[in-house]
Amino acid sequence: MTEERTHRYPEFADPMVRPRYVGLPTFMRAPYEEDLSAVDIALVGIPFDGGVTNRPGARHGPREIRNQSSLMRRINQATGIDPFALCRIADAGDAWVESPYELESALEEIAAFYRRLHAAGTAPVSAGGDHSVTLPVFRGIAAERPVGMVHFDAHCDTGDDYLGSKFHHGAPFRRAVEEGLLDPRRTVQIGIRGPINDPDIWSFSHESGMRVVYMEELYERGPKDVIEEARGIVGDGPTYISFDVDGLDPAFAPGTGTPECGGFSVIEAQIMIRALRGLNLVGGDVVEVAPPFDPSGNTAMVGATILYEILCVVADSLAGRKGG
Amino acid sequence: MTEERTHRYPEFADPMVRPRYVGLPTFMRAPYEEDLSAVDIALVGIPFDGGVTNRPGARHGPREIRNQSSLMRRINQATGIDPFALCRIADAGDAWVESPYELESALEEIAAFYRRLHAAGTAPVSAGGDHSVTLPVFRGIAAERPVGMVHFDAHCDTGDDYLGSKFHHGAPFRRAVEEGLLDPRRTVQIGIRGPINDPDIWSFSHESGMRVVYMEELYERGPKDVIEEARGIVGDGPTYISFDVDGLDPAFAPGTGTPECGGFSVIEAQIMIRALRGLNLVGGDVVEVAPPFDPSGNTAMVGATILYEILCVVADSLAGRKGG
Amino acid sequence: MTEERTHRYPEFADPMVRPRYVGLPTFMRAPYEEDLSAVDIALVGIPFDGGVTNRPGARHGPREIRNQSSLMRRINQATGIDPFALCRIADAGDAWVESPYELESALEEIAAFYRRLHAAGTAPVSAGGDHSVTLPVFRGIAAERPVGMVHFDAHCDTGDDYLGSKFHHGAPFRRAVEEGLLDPRRTVQIGIRGPINDPDIWSFSHESGMRVVYMEELYERGPKDVIEEARGIVGDGPTYISFDVDGLDPAFAPGTGTPECGGFSVIEAQIMIRALRGLNLVGGDVVEVAPPFDPSGNTAMVGATILYEILCVVADSLAGRKGG
Amino acid sequence: MTEERTHRYPEFADPMVRPRYVGLPTFMRAPYEEDLSAVDIALVGIPFDGGVTNRPGARHGPREIRNQSSLMRRINQATGIDPFALCRIADAGDAWVESPYELESALEEIAAFYRRLHAAGTAPVSAGGDHSVTLPVFRGIAAERPVGMVHFDAHCDTGDDYLGSKFHHGAPFRRAVEEGLLDPRRTVQIGIRGPINDPDIWSFSHESGMRVVYMEELYERGPKDVIEEARGIVGDGPTYISFDVDGLDPAFAPGTGTPECGGFSVIEAQIMIRALRGLNLVGGDVVEVAPPFDPSGNTAMVGATILYEILCVVADSLAGRKGG
Amino acid sequence: MTEERTHRYPEFADPMVRPRYVGLPTFMRAPYEEDLSAVDIALVGIPFDGGVTNRPGARHGPREIRNQSSLMRRINQATGIDPFALCRIADAGDAWVESPYELESALEEIAAFYRRLHAAGTAPVSAGGDHSVTLPVFRGIAAERPVGMVHFDAHCDTGDDYLGSKFHHGAPFRRAVEEGLLDPRRTVQIGIRGPINDPDIWSFSHESGMRVVYMEELYERGPKDVIEEARGIVGDGPTYISFDVDGLDPAFAPGTGTPECGGFSVIEAQIMIRALRGLNLVGGDVVEVAPPFDPSGNTAMVGATILYEILCVVADSLAGRKGG
Amino acid sequence: MTEERTHRYPEFADPMVRPRYVGLPTFMRAPYEEDLSAVDIALVGIPFDGGVTNRPGARHGPREIRNQSSLMRRINQATGIDPFALCRIADAGDAWVESPYELESALEEIAAFYRRLHAAGTAPVSAGGDHSVTLPVFRGIAAERPVGMVHFDAHCDTGDDYLGSKFHHGAPFRRAVEEGLLDPRRTVQIGIRGPINDPDIWSFSHESGMRVVYMEELYERGPKDVIEEARGIVGDGPTYISFDVDGLDPAFAPGTGTPECGGFSVIEAQIMIRALRGLNLVGGDVVEVAPPFDPSGNTAMVGATILYEILCVVADSLAGRKGG
Repeated sequence: MTEERTHRYPEFADPMVRPRYVGLPTFMRAPYEEDLSAVDIALVGIPFDGGVTNRPGARHGPREIRNQSSLMRRINQATGIDPFALCRIADAGDAWVESPYELESALEEIAAFYRRLHAAGTAPVSAGGDHSVTLPVFRGIAAERPVGMVHFDAHCDTGDDYLGSKFHHGAPFRRAVEEGLLDPRRTVQIGIRGPINDPDIWSFSHESGMRVVYMEELYERGPKDVIEEARGIVGDGPTYISFDVDGLDPAFAPGTGTPECGGFSVIEAQIMIRALRGLNLVGGDVVEVAPPFDPSGNTAMVGATILYEILCVVADSLAGRKGG
Repeated sequence: MTEERTHRYPEFADPMVRPRYVGLPTFMRAPYEEDLSAVDIALVGIPFDGGVTNRPGARHGPREIRNQSSLMRRINQATGIDPFALCRIADAGDAWVESPYELESALEEIAAFYRRLHAAGTAPVSAGGDHSVTLPVFRGIAAERPVGMVHFDAHCDTGDDYLGSKFHHGAPFRRAVEEGLLDPRRTVQIGIRGPINDPDIWSFSHESGMRVVYMEELYERGPKDVIEEARGIVGDGPTYISFDVDGLDPAFAPGTGTPECGGFSVIEAQIMIRALRGLNLVGGDVVEVAPPFDPSGNTAMVGATILYEILCVVADSLAGRKGG
Repeated sequence: MTEERTHRYPEFADPMVRPRYVGLPTFMRAPYEEDLSAVDIALVGIPFDGGVTNRPGARHGPREIRNQSSLMRRINQATGIDPFALCRIADAGDAWVESPYELESALEEIAAFYRRLHAAGTAPVSAGGDHSVTLPVFRGIAAERPVGMVHFDAHCDTGDDYLGSKFHHGAPFRRAVEEGLLDPRRTVQIGIRGPINDPDIWSFSHESGMRVVYMEELYERGPKDVIEEARGIVGDGPTYISFDVDGLDPAFAPGTGTPECGGFSVIEAQIMIRALRGLNLVGGDVVEVAPPFDPSGNTAMVGATILYEILCVVADSLAGRKGG
Repeated sequence: MTEERTHRYPEFADPMVRPRYVGLPTFMRAPYEEDLSAVDIALVGIPFDGGVTNRPGARHGPREIRNQSSLMRRINQATGIDPFALCRIADAGDAWVESPYELESALEEIAAFYRRLHAAGTAPVSAGGDHSVTLPVFRGIAAERPVGMVHFDAHCDTGDDYLGSKFHHGAPFRRAVEEGLLDPRRTVQIGIRGPINDPDIWSFSHESGMRVVYMEELYERGPKDVIEEARGIVGDGPTYISFDVDGLDPAFAPGTGTPECGGFSVIEAQIMIRALRGLNLVGGDVVEVAPPFDPSGNTAMVGATILYEILCVVADSLAGRKGG
Repeated sequence: MTEERTHRYPEFADPMVRPRYVGLPTFMRAPYEEDLSAVDIALVGIPFDGGVTNRPGARHGPREIRNQSSLMRRINQATGIDPFALCRIADAGDAWVESPYELESALEEIAAFYRRLHAAGTAPVSAGGDHSVTLPVFRGIAAERPVGMVHFDAHCDTGDDYLGSKFHHGAPFRRAVEEGLLDPRRTVQIGIRGPINDPDIWSFSHESGMRVVYMEELYERGPKDVIEEARGIVGDGPTYISFDVDGLDPAFAPGTGTPECGGFSVIEAQIMIRALRGLNLVGGDVVEVAPPFDPSGNTAMVGATILYEILCVVADSLAGRKGG
Repeated sequence: MTEERTHRYPEFADPMVRPRYVGLPTFMRAPYEEDLSAVDIALVGIPFDGGVTNRPGARHGPREIRNQSSLMRRINQATGIDPFALCRIADAGDAWVESPYELESALEEIAAFYRRLHAAGTAPVSAGGDHSVTLPVFRGIAAERPVGMVHFDAHCDTGDDYLGSKFHHGAPFRRAVEEGLLDPRRTVQIGIRGPINDPDIWSFSHESGMRVVYMEELYERGPKDVIEEARGIVGDGPTYISFDVDGLDPAFAPGTGTPECGGFSVIEAQIMIRALRGLNLVGGDVVEVAPPFDPSGNTAMVGATILYEILCVVADSLAGRKGG
């Protein structure tokens, strides 16, 4: 019906550029598409928080990130990247879980979604969900060879058995290395901080060869210098970006499950992600947006902003590989 | 892609019954459908608040009512009505405005949407938006004959010229009578209250023959008795339900533009709407949900609940007329 | 300067009827007037919470009640009373305290304000502040003879020495009786409830002859019946209305210092206050609005609404006495 | 150290009566006691929300209910019951779960806690947690004979397999009947409402002989009449009180996992619980307080209030049985 | 009446230094004065948000900035400037709009206010309102010659026709140049960022000769270096300061209509404004404070702080010109 | 009872390492201990805000800091300090006040608590309360010789008589110097800023020899350089750390009584406190957390984080002195 509508502004035929308070909140108001045959990059929600160790709520992250992502627009003013011009991008819906009460099988449901997506030749840029979901994403997209990773977080998430499982949200990257999905020598973890109960809690990171940039070092060196080093570490192999919003200071992202005071700012995060341009990027995610802990909606807005920044560099990378 | 998914529970093929935090927030997770040829009832958002006299924000109402409407389910437990079984119901998107800075033309944009909808033989159940939007809805659906109305509100909304216009949200029903769209003798206004500046502000209601039930009378008589009278007044002619959430006490719906303390409760509203079953209902709306004034999201949840109650009685009425 | 302005609507020369989001927030946008010689009723703020026993914050009450009181209008639609037409009403500013760190002298500072006001022949309708402030109001206006009182509250506030003082906000009415300012046999306390530590905490109320209507009785009998009895008790002697917002259920007024779940509603409060019309009313107050505990602002809006209802019946009473 | 302190008020030796903002927030500031040998009634927290179907967060309920319970005092003013004088009451800490990622074993951890408590001859009054936890409470206290129940809720919670389990928070009472822990013919469910997806979702309640009082019936008959009937149904056998705060209208208790608009009020809840006095009460619980969804803290305050009301009637009943 | 009061502290005769929670919230508790004949600098509110393209609410900005401005004090501790000693400063009330439903005439109402103010020889420091209001301010004060501008914002606001008008809040400075009110070669825009739909959206800024400092450049160079350049650009001609709070990161100012993550901090803003001392400053404004999107009130507090910083440098400049 | 529990993870026998949402919220879940004979460092709450000059609420600080301190863990990852391994640390409860209505005697009640604590040989790390409480802490621990101080704050708090007292929260350090408890030449005040009414308000700081680092200087030099100077000033004499959360920017700590925009960040605060390691530290405090002004709970989380950082350096210092 509404297609009969005559638009005063022809560009309004595109829902992405309409006034931001109108229309359905798909991710960035991109088209909703379940058939991925003609989609280069899929924006996917993972509404699952069954792996948290403290405050749940990240299951509501995709809904609210979609909502706030209407504030995004097409072109990245800082870099000039127009991801929607470079790639075919769609909201592919949610990798939701039918049996959420058992952690391991839940993660396997998610993995199945990403295997189908990967089989379609589509790269994922996802919004969690708690950080346990990155493991099944890796199962879907890294089965044939391990990926490298630039990982923004307050926590290394390379822990072990806790609360009856080794698949909780503080451990996915240890599992990913063990399963051959993640190359620890091509992994950089940035923003790590906070008090700990076990002095060896992140020993796996150090022993496996990951580069851990603690928050103090990031504060001293600044974002550009740290990312310059990170680029050298991940090199030109396939690389994934995982961004846990608790890497940011809680002033910027209070709505998260395991907040740690004393983090970096959003502009610093943006500078770091933009500086990843040119790497061989195969996907990324923003996780741990827990809207119930931030009634202002700001954390979801930050989540949408970071998701957009990741989308830009992934699209640029993908277009470069295709073009080449 | 996801249609390949094998569901553990076959009913999960229907997005309406999936876990409520997953998927896109169309109204009640009904299918999104721009082609109305096979739609009996369209759920429509009207993200416009250019007619407010005090606090704006209702333009964000449709988005948040959609979000909270995932908490609805198929069947009305109190009445047994399953609107989705009785009628073909879809989310028809937003009647949004391309030129919002001029009130009269903005309302005409909305009217055009409803004319197309009405021409398709579809009945609307809408979520505003401020109350000025009901006038263009009437222009769309009542051009051939005036409708009657059961109107829940703290204000009669039959005012006149104010702030440079007679089309603001405190005047739509005076305009509707003048335009021959609303039959005042078949109109009942319930919940009216609050201090006033002009003793004659609602004189049009009284002089035109509308029945005004002030809040004190509602408190004394109770909801069932008042609706019994209302049924007699609107009779069996075509009738519209317009529900301004400021009719509710602000404890139940703080997120609104012109709150008036001392209103009715949600259970009383539900009892009243359910008691309209059997009337000749042609549509309805919920207006004045202004989410920025309620960070808890409760007002939008109330808005979704009332929208669902109206949908149930409209669907039941429509099915009865069709069946007959 | 702005008086040169030519108004499109002549009534806009009066700040009280301008759009509610414009202008300075005096109480109900009444004129600010420090000279009370031509003022019948003074709206006064008492920004003092040095008498609380639990949560402070009521010092911020007058500011926020003024802010929300812009939502009021001139005429009480339910009763037809136009207080501004009946009496000369002004915002007389705040009875603020210069030495707040010592409770007794602070209360005496407040009393001095009310003595001046009373000497000017002006009746006060005040916004607290915690309930300890009603004692100095009485010292100002009841020195020549005790007043009766209709008192809405969850607590009798007739306690004794606690936390080092007998002038805290749980005791003003015992002090007032002792000081000969309040006639306990002409005092009715409505809405009393909540758990207690001392079974005799309110024994002074009972032994001095006050009528205590517990919340259960109010629920059973309803507001009209209770007020009918109250009218008989206070009779035609000078009577004061004191309304502690914690008499309301916290769903309606969460921003208060000593909330007690299970109270009455705003519409019930309005019905009760309106039913006091015709009594010999000499003033009133709304106390214990503590805005920091209600970021939505609703409690202050309720406070403004109740203040307006009290103003109406006081103005009506005052005009009647003058007229006679 | 502090016991050396000389108190100005001798009663301040008891932490329960100190100013409410001081000290550690045990439940109602009762003594914390892990050794239950001298405890008649244990106040227990169950910080588990692994059984929710929609919004998690009730794991944070016990912490915040303890926090707000400082607002309680010793004696129930409405009934005169002083539970702390009648029984030895302690905060027994949390029945917390070490392996929360697997629902069934988590519930069994909770059951083990209650078996130890029951073996010590102690009656539990608990604060959840989601409603799935009432099943393991029953396993702990009802193994030797089924109990009756007065159940306040928006949902019957007698569902079946959903999301991969039949132990989620919408099904505990079906499981309890099947396990011989709950006598359906001595069970009354009050406040039931809300839309449903499956018309037979609560058929187990009806077919097993439970009495279901829908919200409309409660509104029509009023709380006293409904409880009068309930007393007859549960009779003089051992009876448990389970109170889901979503039975209340969300205006009173927005912080909950599955809100349903149109519920009863707190004063109505209090009247109903108080009217259970004299029954043979063996314990009770308040569940589904999810603090993240109510930043005001009001829902936890309501939870504490209801917990106190249940404690009063359970203590009165227990003292009566002992005394007899 | 209150002037009879004897103050314990003589300085309390001045409302500006009284406890901050007392008294009427004029801007910084300066005297309210409609007659501008003896006023050097007028603090003016512009409660209008009819030009927004996304989230409205800035009409409530002046009220809340006044409220929070009570936290200001007389002397700028960082610079030693005491604006109230240098100039006669008053709160001149609101430049409010009687016909808000039509954008162009609304702006002209505002312009009329500023023409009267300018004719009185008074310099304005204003609090919006959305950014569309700066155009009519310019019409009032820059008719005889264009001004230069230091402009803090996330957006250049030099757009064109959109949503049916070219006078919305994203375009005022293009209009101002076209109307000969603003000298683009003496204009610096600082903090620009965020995704865009049209790559040429800010081409007018670049083509007209404005200096655009994007956020990345500001982060790299720091505030002092950027302002040093800005001083050179605006030179010693008449210069205006326009501060859109969305230039700040949303962590500092969430309550705004078009938030863009990744902005500067308040201390950086203060350093930049203070460094404008000595320029030939003719007025300034703070715009886009939308209180409904920040229930904490912090954004309005930031708005008041920035308004005070602008007032200080404008007063210093004005006093210098007068003194010379 | 629960000690019989068999833990799946042996470390769970220690409440400090259990899941953070379980158990009683003592400070950092350390053992609650009233007998200080075997306690090296006591964590103490001071729930008193009777000394504020603007917004009260800090009396609720200890309760909420305890609540959020469950997010802390044992070992400081940045410095490797494990305070609980170095010292015997306990929650010693609250230094609460029985007679809060009179400021001077209230402070003396607090002093008595700290004298007992000091006599037991225990060092205090305290959570306020407003800043007036540091004076009685000093009376307790510095009677035998003055201490030096590193003081983080927006205000010097060396004012004089105001609002009827010289013991309000803006004056404790002038009183402390006068009472011989604080050595001004070994005192550094960091972060000072904000407008002032009296140009000489902090002259006592300057004249007595305190080093005042204004916010602008801190921004320019950075945290490490400033602390390097501070270390030289306090030298190796006994030194106290006092941290007023209003030294932080309100974006990080909005819940405070006298917010001043434009402060430092949490990571900067952490860097500064950690750099105090090795000084001769005798105690410290975090004050002015006023939870009612931050419904998100973030300010209390920041307060808990800072309290933990102070605890770490105090414990390290104490252990070093003992070890030596």
